[in-house]
Amino acid sequence: MTTTPDHSTPHAVVLLSGGLDSATTLAIARHDGFACHALSFDYGQRHRVELRAARRVAQHLGVTSHRTVTIDLRAFGHSALTDDIDVPKDQLDAHPDHPVIPVTYVPARNTIFLAYALALAEVIGSSDIYIGVNAVDYSGYPDCRPEFVSAFQSLARLATKASVEGSPLNIHTPLINMTKPQIIEHGRLLGVDFAMTHSCYDPGPSGNPCTHCDACLLRQRAFESLGLRDPLLP
Amino acid sequence: MTTTPDHSTPHAVVLLSGGLDSATTLAIARHDGFACHALSFDYGQRHRVELRAARRVAQHLGVTSHRTVTIDLRAFGHSALTDDIDVPKDQLDAHPDHPVIPVTYVPARNTIFLAYALALAEVIGSSDIYIGVNAVDYSGYPDCRPEFVSAFQSLARLATKASVEGSPLNIHTPLINMTKPQIIEHGRLLGVDFAMTHSCYDPGPSGNPCTHCDACLLRQRAFESLGLRDPLLP
Repeated sequence: MTTTPDHSTPHAVVLLSGGLDSATTLAIARHDGFACHALSFDYGQRHRVELRAARRVAQHLGVTSHRTVTIDLRAFGHSALTDDIDVPKDQLDAHPDHPVIPVTYVPARNTIFLAYALALAEVIGSSDIYIGVNAVDYSGYPDCRPEFVSAFQSLARLATKASVEGSPLNIHTPLINMTKPQIIEHGRLLGVDFAMTHSCYDPGPSGNPCTHCDACLLRQRAFESLGLRDPLLP
Repeated sequence: MTTTPDHSTPHAVVLLSGGLDSATTLAIARHDGFACHALSFDYGQRHRVELRAARRVAQHLGVTSHRTVTIDLRAFGHSALTDDIDVPKDQLDAHPDHPVIPVTYVPARNTIFLAYALALAEVIGSSDIYIGVNAVDYSGYPDCRPEFVSAFQSLARLATKASVEGSPLNIHTPLINMTKPQIIEHGRLLGVDFAMTHSCYDPGPSGNPCTHCDACLLRQRAFESLGLRDPLLP
């Protein structure tokens, strides 16, 4: 969906999966004063219901544009999110001290997503990209770490026309040091309706959350710790 | 095409456009002792005949696998290679001292290509990626510069499972300091059949080169400087 573009305000690209984190990130980017261009990816994920959530969230928070890019990571395989591997259930506390890389990891996913965000930023003349990575979500994903994001920013500043012409690109990670409950509090403060978001890795046929995968469990616990009920629970 | 995989030799991902440079790069990677996984991109380019050239070259040089990934940069627009902008003709010497970024530049193209190469490297358990960028081809493309490639290597070493597990990824740029004639000489030495390659940005209906775009002119001059005739010329 699209609202009327306003070229007097700065523009930003916001990676939007339709989950709780990216919805809050979009709300923060709007609050920071940016006209936001949401970017989602159809990468053959089993939880494609998240693309519908991304559209709802984009509309709800008033983006300037929303693009969904189809990429075929499926050809490369090797992830429970795209292959016929069972999504692990009730395993969140299995490795509390030594997080292992989960089977839901998609190879080089954030590198690919940020590369597309960089292309879009260049096309729309933006110097700002928002991505909702955070320490809790890290839990073994190498491409959610602050040092990864920092390295991508260094790359981005060498990669595009704008960088050659002296307008350095900034990667914003407003959630990087927030806990899940803090993200929810921040989102609520900025008017995010979390009933519109989607987090489950293995939803049922109607898009309902399984309530037992890592993503569901992290989300439920965060709402509970705030004395709230996840609006997605039946 | 695929030949029998041999797991006793190290594996490399080679970006293969079907042009003269990437064909030589693939020959060098083979000569370096790697089993090569060629990776090409269908990004809505007008010169899609290059994808047929990539298949010919991959077969000719004996790759272990060849994948063509479809990406939709076209949705982002802003390039003569994907939009309905005229490809400049006979403009090669227009800006000899102050190279400008040509309209054939595709936003963040090498960032996106290398991101996919990184994903494939991770999936096949490879620590080596070959890309045929070089100083002559730079001519205003920010993402062909050595510092760009170096920044991508730093990123790659933070981005993947393998990097976390201590197997650092290497980006090989064997052509980086070669002139076009040196690339041709090197390729000839390694048995590359340049009649199979394709360089033109604006080919005719049968795939024949226009002979006047920057890519055609650079190529012709390089063959001429060696006292050779470009095998693609009519």
